[in-house]
Amino acid sequence: MTKIERREFIKKTAIAAAGGTALMMGCNDKKSDGTAAVVNSKTYEWKMVTAWLPNFPLLGEGAVKLARMIEKMSNNRLKITVYGGGELVPALETFDAVSQGVAEMGHSASYYWAGKAPAAQLFTSVPFGMNTQQTNAWLYNGGGLDLWKELYSKFNLIPFPAGNTGGQMGGWYNKEIKSADDFKGLKIRQPGLAGKVVTKAGAASILSPGGEIYTNLERGVIDATDWIGPYHDYQMGFHKIAKYYYYPSWSEPTGVVELMVNKNAYEQLPDDLKEIVKVCASAINNQMLGEFETKNSEYLEKLESESGIEIKKYPADVMNVFKNYTNEVLHELESSDEMSAKILESYNLFRKNITRWTNYTERQFFWEE
Amino acid sequence: MTKIERREFIKKTAIAAAGGTALMMGCNDKKSDGTAAVVNSKTYEWKMVTAWLPNFPLLGEGAVKLARMIEKMSNNRLKITVYGGGELVPALETFDAVSQGVAEMGHSASYYWAGKAPAAQLFTSVPFGMNTQQTNAWLYNGGGLDLWKELYSKFNLIPFPAGNTGGQMGGWYNKEIKSADDFKGLKIRQPGLAGKVVTKAGAASILSPGGEIYTNLERGVIDATDWIGPYHDYQMGFHKIAKYYYYPSWSEPTGVVELMVNKNAYEQLPDDLKEIVKVCASAINNQMLGEFETKNSEYLEKLESESGIEIKKYPADVMNVFKNYTNEVLHELESSDEMSAKILESYNLFRKNITRWTNYTERQFFWEE
Repeated sequence: MTKIERREFIKKTAIAAAGGTALMMGCNDKKSDGTAAVVNSKTYEWKMVTAWLPNFPLLGEGAVKLARMIEKMSNNRLKITVYGGGELVPALETFDAVSQGVAEMGHSASYYWAGKAPAAQLFTSVPFGMNTQQTNAWLYNGGGLDLWKELYSKFNLIPFPAGNTGGQMGGWYNKEIKSADDFKGLKIRQPGLAGKVVTKAGAASILSPGGEIYTNLERGVIDATDWIGPYHDYQMGFHKIAKYYYYPSWSEPTGVVELMVNKNAYEQLPDDLKEIVKVCASAINNQMLGEFETKNSEYLEKLESESGIEIKKYPADVMNVFKNYTNEVLHELESSDEMSAKILESYNLFRKNITRWTNYTERQFFWEE
Repeated sequence: MTKIERREFIKKTAIAAAGGTALMMGCNDKKSDGTAAVVNSKTYEWKMVTAWLPNFPLLGEGAVKLARMIEKMSNNRLKITVYGGGELVPALETFDAVSQGVAEMGHSASYYWAGKAPAAQLFTSVPFGMNTQQTNAWLYNGGGLDLWKELYSKFNLIPFPAGNTGGQMGGWYNKEIKSADDFKGLKIRQPGLAGKVVTKAGAASILSPGGEIYTNLERGVIDATDWIGPYHDYQMGFHKIAKYYYYPSWSEPTGVVELMVNKNAYEQLPDDLKEIVKVCASAINNQMLGEFETKNSEYLEKLESESGIEIKKYPADVMNVFKNYTNEVLHELESSDEMSAKILESYNLFRKNITRWTNYTERQFFWEE
């Protein structure tokens, strides 16, 4: 499909969706006490577009699990066909497709939409920011999700946290990093806010689609790349061509995955299906994290035992310099975008409080090396 | 999902639904393609007993939220009346009540049932054990929940993780702790496996019901007590009568909360309601943790600003000695109870793997003091 054909398709499907579903049938079950339990029997057939390759491990699989759970809980009254990136619309048009009603749902990560709304990227991860447990507390209980809803509302979208990668790894390097100076002239694939950070350190931030990273790293088009964690990185084969695997992921101490729902479509659902979608997103948020943590544990072991890679910690100098640059990047974001400033104010205040608590608890719970 | 997979799925669900409808009133919504969507309209009225005082903050409240979410998702087809401890049966008879079908559901913590099955306590928290994120990964993805199901199966119960306190605090002391020797003769309320640990250190482990702890601590019947974390501890008023608030909680680095369901009752539910119960438990597990973390952060600040308490870290000597005693206590449990041995084998293996991963990730994500 050309871009114009696709736009036409998007327009047509949007119209079809708006006029689409009129299969409502009520079914009243008269109970012994005389009250009627109204049973909703109208069925909905929805599309979920995703920013992942079809069945991409854990992320694309998570989207399918989410859909199946919703179908099962709704006894198939809400049916969801899941499309991998490129199957209905390109991965990076997920946001527009759901916003315009081409699909009713999307499963993706908010940092892809920085071009639509710069503040969106803050809901995936903040460099040197909160970890997963802290971020979830902020989202659900500290006002974070309310701000996210406010931001997406302008795009006719409702966001739900619906998965998490957990903490990631720093990335793969073919050059040893001894100080921040080693980033000068380094060609690195490091997208998002973190890309701006390494640029400040003198690196060349090179964009590289997922499918080309391996070849680019092998041929020296790039010297280094971030990706996800041991499980996904193993499948990319980076251990065959890179020498060093650096930690920690200062750029992604958490990785929130989102479910977005077209607001008109959501509003048309009866209350039970609305609640099912909401609760299911929260459950998959919880479960995907466990899957990532478990798979990454297993594949860290595999990576180490099957290859000669060195796992190295970024030197303190790099961490200090990058933390300062991160502050600069966040200040630039705040001063250029009002919504980002509002979100970071909430984020930083919440973080200050929870950090004190975490220092007495989670920080202490590392009993073993 | 491909179109073919989806068709297969629809076919399978249709068959499952058709076979499981003995007790239901059907309501068929004939769709345009000729397939019928069976709508379950039978209603269930269930009781949930809990081990918490009625509306006990976060825990009792969580039980009520869980019930309301299930009701909303099921459009009131599964109605649940929640009873605080003592309202229908005493708090500590929750297990028996659900096992025997007096109530269909119970919300509690598995370590209360050590007298029924010694291994049960391992599913709440293991002293010096895994934190919340690691424990959830073990339960959902590392075989932990399967073992828990196996254990409870003999009691006609199905367990679901359904809440978490997060990491707790060490406890309140009226005597400064400088070394493990200071526990000799100390009268301390410290229940469970941790009670056995402090006993090995020479302390007198004193049982004290929740309602009497304050008076006992004030009058010197006990010198020290554990409780939960800043939010609940503040409401107990311990800061008015104790000098020192110790961390970390070596005894409870996590606190898994359980939903147990009577197996016969669960088996009678149609598939959609079964899935609703299961998914809802997972969602409340996720959400309660955020509530605990947020409230504890707020009340830590309140405790510090409103009272003259000293927050102190257990000396390294105490931690080392207690860790050794914990190993002794766990070995005693393993050698006296086969199921405990089986569970600890799974727990320890999972922990070994995830600890290596966590050392590269979560352990590094403490950017601020």
